[in-house]
Amino acid sequence: MIISIIGLGLIGGSMAIDLKRCAFASQIIGVDNNPSHCDQALELGIVDEIKTLDEAIWIADIIILSIPVDSMVKLLPNILDKIDKHSVITDVGSTKFNLIESVKDHPKRKRYVASHPMAGTEYSGPKAAVKNLFQEKVSIICNKEESDEDAVRHIEKMYRALYMKIIYMDAKEHDVHAAYVSHISHISSFVLANTVLEKEKSASNIFNLASGGFASTVRLAKSSPQMWSPIFVQNSENILQVLETYIQKLTEFKNLIEQKDLNSLENKMSEANEIRKIIK
Amino acid sequence: MIISIIGLGLIGGSMAIDLKRCAFASQIIGVDNNPSHCDQALELGIVDEIKTLDEAIWIADIIILSIPVDSMVKLLPNILDKIDKHSVITDVGSTKFNLIESVKDHPKRKRYVASHPMAGTEYSGPKAAVKNLFQEKVSIICNKEESDEDAVRHIEKMYRALYMKIIYMDAKEHDVHAAYVSHISHISSFVLANTVLEKEKSASNIFNLASGGFASTVRLAKSSPQMWSPIFVQNSENILQVLETYIQKLTEFKNLIEQKDLNSLENKMSEANEIRKIIK
Repeated sequence: MIISIIGLGLIGGSMAIDLKRCAFASQIIGVDNNPSHCDQALELGIVDEIKTLDEAIWIADIIILSIPVDSMVKLLPNILDKIDKHSVITDVGSTKFNLIESVKDHPKRKRYVASHPMAGTEYSGPKAAVKNLFQEKVSIICNKEESDEDAVRHIEKMYRALYMKIIYMDAKEHDVHAAYVSHISHISSFVLANTVLEKEKSASNIFNLASGGFASTVRLAKSSPQMWSPIFVQNSENILQVLETYIQKLTEFKNLIEQKDLNSLENKMSEANEIRKIIK
Repeated sequence: MIISIIGLGLIGGSMAIDLKRCAFASQIIGVDNNPSHCDQALELGIVDEIKTLDEAIWIADIIILSIPVDSMVKLLPNILDKIDKHSVITDVGSTKFNLIESVKDHPKRKRYVASHPMAGTEYSGPKAAVKNLFQEKVSIICNKEESDEDAVRHIEKMYRALYMKIIYMDAKEHDVHAAYVSHISHISSFVLANTVLEKEKSASNIFNLASGGFASTVRLAKSSPQMWSPIFVQNSENILQVLETYIQKLTEFKNLIEQKDLNSLENKMSEANEIRKIIK
């Protein structure tokens, strides 16, 4: 199986490593706008060859789009235009509705399988690619019924080769849940970093006091702005809803601190503790 | 050296384990209001003996207070009343100013060394105690000049035995920096949990999508409400300041999403990325 990966960052690179290791891919072709990413991916042995986009499309059995979601929306229809009828294209984007909409009337729509492997780290670029990133994690396939059965089967096999659990969702539903769980976490962390960097002028104080918990809450603030800004814009409707609630609840919490209301603060935190039952 | 630990939770318990392992303590005496904590600490071998508070005060060379900060303010003056002139008492609380104020005119003030080891996990109780919790972390000693030199030396030796780096701060300054880095992180995480639990009704969606980053941002929301509510109230002045800034910056971020302003969002996140230089 020849696999072409468009976008050799954290996710594309990590998929390349594991799909080759488990022998699901006989050959990995890489494509990236950034020449230094191409060089790094070759040097690190993440891809076997770098090709142009067109060459990579023609040769591949499976094409994986792993670029920012605004670029995906532009590129996906062009790739479908060129794709062979036996090839399959999937993507790994964090938003699904817009992307699916962009090809809904495309004559080769059925060769596209929309997916979202729920895994990552705060690092980016080919050097951030690691093995076993996907193991035991969940990959979401959206609007499965809009794709050819054999295309879905190929993509399912691919994620199973990465030892992922597969679940199915409607694209709109996916975007709501991604906003409620993943996207809001990134915003909370990015803005926490902005806040602490503004208030605490001493880098050594931040460093010394970070073991008190800050290091883990701020981890996601190291993530790629180029990847995340189009996600926030594409999924703005759902994100604004949950962000509104977050701001409102922070304001309530602030009022309770102002009132020195120990009991109500304890109650709010006990409610938050319920998360222990879901995330061990 | 006989060490009495008042409060056998995560921090008190973890100190007990390592102070015994490194042979800094010849004997660890435990005190806890909660009888099941006492039983657990004995069963787990965290303490050698359970005694009453008075017995634990009389026998100890060093007394460690590791209870919620509101209880500390009540208990510290009473313990100083009873302490032998050669003994030393320290505390591990996350706020320092109020506690130091509570004993500032006490005739035995100088036997008290105010400290704050910056380490922890999201778990609580004696079963949460682990070895090596403090290794390579920072312990802050406050208002050192208000304590006897030999008392400070004892506490410094104790933290060094735990392989901690020691820094010194004024208590007021400590409380500001703790608010700016540690306390705000906990609030951001507690309220994120409240928000996600309200918006996302499906526990399995939360579980499946948590690998997208939520798991690490929400980790601190599992922390003990009984320990954290008095910290937020005691340090309210500093916390309200930074929490105000956090809410304001979240509102700005929300507005940029509403305006679909990709560039400004990217800029804000690039600023947040600066945290990479401080926290690896």
